[in-house]
Amino acid sequence: MREHELIAALERLLGCDDARVVIGPGDDASVVRSRGYAVTSVDSMVEGVHFRSAQLTPAEIGHRALAAALSDLAAMGVRAGEVYLALGLTEGIEPTHVLELVNGAQGLAQQTGACIVGGDIVRAPALTVSFTAVGWADDPGQIISRGGARPGDLVGITGTLGASGAGLALLDGRAQLHDQALAGQLRERYARPQPRLDEGRVLAAAGAHAMIDLSDGLASDAGHVGRRSGVSLELMLSSLPLAPGVDEVAEQLGADPAAFAASAGEDYELCVCASPNALEEIESALRSASPISWVGRAVDGPPGAAFIDSTEQLYGYDNLV
Amino acid sequence: MREHELIAALERLLGCDDARVVIGPGDDASVVRSRGYAVTSVDSMVEGVHFRSAQLTPAEIGHRALAAALSDLAAMGVRAGEVYLALGLTEGIEPTHVLELVNGAQGLAQQTGACIVGGDIVRAPALTVSFTAVGWADDPGQIISRGGARPGDLVGITGTLGASGAGLALLDGRAQLHDQALAGQLRERYARPQPRLDEGRVLAAAGAHAMIDLSDGLASDAGHVGRRSGVSLELMLSSLPLAPGVDEVAEQLGADPAAFAASAGEDYELCVCASPNALEEIESALRSASPISWVGRAVDGPPGAAFIDSTEQLYGYDNLV
Repeated sequence: MREHELIAALERLLGCDDARVVIGPGDDASVVRSRGYAVTSVDSMVEGVHFRSAQLTPAEIGHRALAAALSDLAAMGVRAGEVYLALGLTEGIEPTHVLELVNGAQGLAQQTGACIVGGDIVRAPALTVSFTAVGWADDPGQIISRGGARPGDLVGITGTLGASGAGLALLDGRAQLHDQALAGQLRERYARPQPRLDEGRVLAAAGAHAMIDLSDGLASDAGHVGRRSGVSLELMLSSLPLAPGVDEVAEQLGADPAAFAASAGEDYELCVCASPNALEEIESALRSASPISWVGRAVDGPPGAAFIDSTEQLYGYDNLV
Repeated sequence: MREHELIAALERLLGCDDARVVIGPGDDASVVRSRGYAVTSVDSMVEGVHFRSAQLTPAEIGHRALAAALSDLAAMGVRAGEVYLALGLTEGIEPTHVLELVNGAQGLAQQTGACIVGGDIVRAPALTVSFTAVGWADDPGQIISRGGARPGDLVGITGTLGASGAGLALLDGRAQLHDQALAGQLRERYARPQPRLDEGRVLAAAGAHAMIDLSDGLASDAGHVGRRSGVSLELMLSSLPLAPGVDEVAEQLGADPAAFAASAGEDYELCVCASPNALEEIESALRSASPISWVGRAVDGPPGAAFIDSTEQLYGYDNLV
């Protein structure tokens, strides 16, 4: 398959039958019908920095990169709209691998109602997958930023933490589990994270004051919320909802399981700040999606976040990696 | 300067005082007020593939990458709106270089009315600058695709061709000019191309049927228009508007100057197809911007483009580079 054939095959693969798309892949730019406010996030993943091709299938690499971009939309409380792909391909990469990668992303796009409508492909020294994801909101009041947490808010977490980091430790051979099914679940959480789009919209509708998605780990990400909101988030390590198997993996790594879950990153769960008055509505609304765990509260204090039941200073992934 | 300081400095640098921006850099996603239809293009440039840091200042690298993305919007006939930046930084890159690069892009953004409102920064094995550029149109009828050329249309080119390729040849040391001012102009066309946003809107308003920006070179890009439109573009090499100095550089390279200008790429001029009836309106409307040269016509025939006064088969830059 030659390069122009690959591009033609990708153009056939992408796009979607949707009246909102006026011009899809293959023109100078894509054209889509808009609504009120555009909510846009960019997320890049680079081979050797954010993933290793030996540990993931091409489809998983595509899924995972798109999941990271859509997770940002989840944290804003909006539906997934259109997606644009900037792909950097190494010399000699198999065209079938490229098609599988894009197909992996396309599978997640179809599952979440997103549409990959355009992009760019260039040569690069390492496989690079960058998505720009756009969602729409009719009213800016429906959009939840990082900056709205108020003293007195409760801090909640969807789903469970530490699974992705534990899955990576298993892939790296730094830890082993006898329970193969459990090991497979952890690997899957690393390889094919699910952006919490439904949960994000439910939380926004239930009156969330602030949200962030947990890409770098709660230790880092809660700090962003605290600083942007001008409040101090007091968190409890002992309250963190650990995924099954995380304790065993963390112990093999010589780490405290909760500290590991707070800093390993890439779980793509949501961290939400909301008034205690909204607690009942949130719990009832989320019953059909993933459960929520309350892990702390916002108080007046130095902007940021800290685990008040730990003397350890925890850091998540750095912003730059 | 540490990494979080760099990110804070970039967040201060980016954004713009504009009522359309609801949430700028620093949140999970950026939020802007939209209009009718979103016109979106992605353009990536990679060190060693699309540029060499030894040949350009950081500001030029930023300018050039944004110019390529905005040039796609010019070819759709829309104004520049918001821009999102995905930056891949090598280990150990000077933070001041990163700020200069982003400042170079910000200068072009301000000059063209664009606003850089968000993005992502990651570690990468080569400096990578990827822009997603968005423009808006109230009516899809205002947007000019590649696919609307009709038999009988004239094919026009804004400005002059070959300057960027000649500038690169001078930078590479593959050619020399005695006239230093002329050499400087050619280098500038390579280092700081100007997206033809005003010309694109004028041409759209004057009834252009199809447009494309000349990033890969007319030989390739006119072929895209022909194939998307289902027409044959018959072009005349002898009619191409060569930039001053291109003939001398091409001769040193042992190339026919017009063939060089048709295939060297990265001039970021516009190629337009329009009815002969629109010729007068287009020429009069473009008088205040760059002049237009008529270089061929669209006819019924095998979809694509060919130079009918040359037996040579010309190719531009490949899509993948």
